[in-house]
Amino acid sequence: MSSGFKRPSPRTWRPKEEEELIELIVEACPTEGPRVKAGDDDAAVLPDGTVVNFDAMTRSRHVPKELRDRDLGWKFVASVVSDVGAMGGEPSFFGFSVCLDDEVDVEQLVLGISEGLREFGVSLIGGDVVEGEELVLSGTCLGKLKGEPLLMSNARPGDVVAVTGPLGGPNAFVRAILNGMEPEETLYERFARPRPPVEVGVELARGGYRAAVTDISDGLLAEAEAIARRSGVAIEIHTWKVPVDEGVEEVAQEFDVDPVDLALEGGEDYEFLICGPEDVVKEFGLTTIGRVTEGEGVRIVRNPRARSE
Amino acid sequence: MSSGFKRPSPRTWRPKEEEELIELIVEACPTEGPRVKAGDDDAAVLPDGTVVNFDAMTRSRHVPKELRDRDLGWKFVASVVSDVGAMGGEPSFFGFSVCLDDEVDVEQLVLGISEGLREFGVSLIGGDVVEGEELVLSGTCLGKLKGEPLLMSNARPGDVVAVTGPLGGPNAFVRAILNGMEPEETLYERFARPRPPVEVGVELARGGYRAAVTDISDGLLAEAEAIARRSGVAIEIHTWKVPVDEGVEEVAQEFDVDPVDLALEGGEDYEFLICGPEDVVKEFGLTTIGRVTEGEGVRIVRNPRARSE
Repeated sequence: MSSGFKRPSPRTWRPKEEEELIELIVEACPTEGPRVKAGDDDAAVLPDGTVVNFDAMTRSRHVPKELRDRDLGWKFVASVVSDVGAMGGEPSFFGFSVCLDDEVDVEQLVLGISEGLREFGVSLIGGDVVEGEELVLSGTCLGKLKGEPLLMSNARPGDVVAVTGPLGGPNAFVRAILNGMEPEETLYERFARPRPPVEVGVELARGGYRAAVTDISDGLLAEAEAIARRSGVAIEIHTWKVPVDEGVEEVAQEFDVDPVDLALEGGEDYEFLICGPEDVVKEFGLTTIGRVTEGEGVRIVRNPRARSE
Repeated sequence: MSSGFKRPSPRTWRPKEEEELIELIVEACPTEGPRVKAGDDDAAVLPDGTVVNFDAMTRSRHVPKELRDRDLGWKFVASVVSDVGAMGGEPSFFGFSVCLDDEVDVEQLVLGISEGLREFGVSLIGGDVVEGEELVLSGTCLGKLKGEPLLMSNARPGDVVAVTGPLGGPNAFVRAILNGMEPEETLYERFARPRPPVEVGVELARGGYRAAVTDISDGLLAEAEAIARRSGVAIEIHTWKVPVDEGVEEVAQEFDVDPVDLALEGGEDYEFLICGPEDVVKEFGLTTIGRVTEGEGVRIVRNPRARSE
C-alpha cells in the first residue's frame, strides 16, 4: 500500500486531488532529518536505520463485504509490513489505531491481526481504539534496515526487471465480485491473505545488493512507472513473461480481456517488483519479466518479435 | 491522550468495554521485545531507546464544532507528542494517517499540523490519506529516550506529587459549550492549543532522575490513580494546592461546583503529573499538589487540617 505520502491506490482516490493534497502536506510540514524522506520512497529510513511505514484502510474504500473480518486483520498487517520489507528493513514492531464501526466483528478482526503479526514476526507495541461512523485501520510498522536501502531510484540501464510471484489475482477477484460473479477460493486467498515476500527485501539489503524494490500494491504498471521515473530510466515489460495467478484466466475470459492486463493494471498484488543485475535476480530465483534501458517511461511489449534491441 | 492500549479518554468510551477490548487485543497479539511494553505505560520503549506513541482522534468523539480545523491539527500533534515527552523521550519524527470527511477544511488542518510539528521540533516522515464517512486522525510519534524511562511505576513513598501547570481549562470549556455558554477565549486556547511540557520530561530523563511522569490527558484523578496502582503506593492530593486555569472559576460558579473539581475530574489537560523526590520537584520549579505515601489509591484532601500525618 502507499506510504510516505506517495502514490495512493488508484482505487481510493482521484489521482489529481490526491497528488495535490500530498504536495500540500509535504510542502507545509517540516520534513528534515530522515535518511529517506517522506514522499521519496516506500517507507522512511531514519538516521539510526529504523525503517518506518504508515498505511490506512477504510471500509468504504478498501473493504468489500466479501472480505471476512479475520482476513481483513491479516491483510491490514501484511499491507503495512510489506513496504518495510520492500525497503530492506526487517519488520519488528507494529502499532495500530482503529476506529470501529457497528459492523465489524472485533474479535475476528483482532484474531486476524494477531495471525498477521505472528506470520511476519512482528510484535505489537501500542495503539489506540476509538469508535466512529466508519471502520478505519491505521497501522505503523517499524523495522531495522539491513545493509543499504532498496530505493526505487536504484534501477540502472542493463538491469533486468523481475517479480517475486504471480500477479492479477486480487484485481480479478475485485472485478468478479463487482460484476456478481463468484470467484474461486484461490482468488479470494490472493486478495484476502497476501504474503509480501519481506524476506527477499531483507536478504537483498543484507547482501549489499543494489536493487530497486517496491511492492506491487498499486499495480505492476504504476509501480514500474514509479521506478522508471525515480531512477531516470526506461522499463520494458515483456507481457508473455508476466506470471499470472491461478483463476485469473477464467475471469479474464468472462470480461473478454487478456489475463495479463489484469496483472498489469491490477492493484493489491503484494509481490515485489525488483530491478537489479541479472545475476542477483537469478540468485534469488525471481521471475524475469523485462529489462531496464536508457530513456524514460514504461514500454509494454506484447510480442517477443517486437522487442527492441 | 491514551496510547499503548491503555487508559482511554473517559469521554470516548465506556471504560468496561474499552478495558475488555484492550485485554482482548493484548492477549491475542504477540508483544515480546520492547523494553517497555504495550499497555504498561504512556508509550512503548524499544530496545534501541526509540520511544513510540500512537493516538487517534475522531470527529464524533473528540472534535466539538467549536474547535477550528487549524487548532484541531495542532491539538492532534500535541496529543501524540505529549506521551513521548512524558516517557522522557525527545520527539523527533511524526507520521499520520487521516481519513477525511466532507466537513474538514484540509488546508487549515494541514496548516495546524505543520504549526504543531514546528512547535515541538518534529519532522514529518510519512503517512497515508484516505476518504471516509468520518474524520479520523491517527498519529505516531517517535523519539529517543534520554536517560532512563519516566515510568508510571516510579513513584515511591516520601515523594511529592507535582504538576507542570494549571488544570481544568479544557474541562470547563467542554462543560460550557455543552451547556450553551460562550466560554472565554483563554479557555478555548487551553482546550484547542495545548502545549505539553515535553522539555520537562526530556530534562528529567537526561538528568537521570527517578520520577513517575504522565500527561494529564485523562484528568488528574484518573492519572493519579494510574500512578498509584502501577507504583503500588497511595497518593494524597491537597486540593487547595491544585492550580486552576484562568476562566475555570466562572464556569464553576455557573454550575455551582468547586473549581478544583473541574481540574480533578477533567481531561485533556496536557500538563504533566510528576511524582518524585522533593528536591527534584523544586529544581524543576514544579507546583507541589500532594504527596506519595504507603498504601493504595488516591486520597483527596480538601482541608489542610484533615491532612494525614
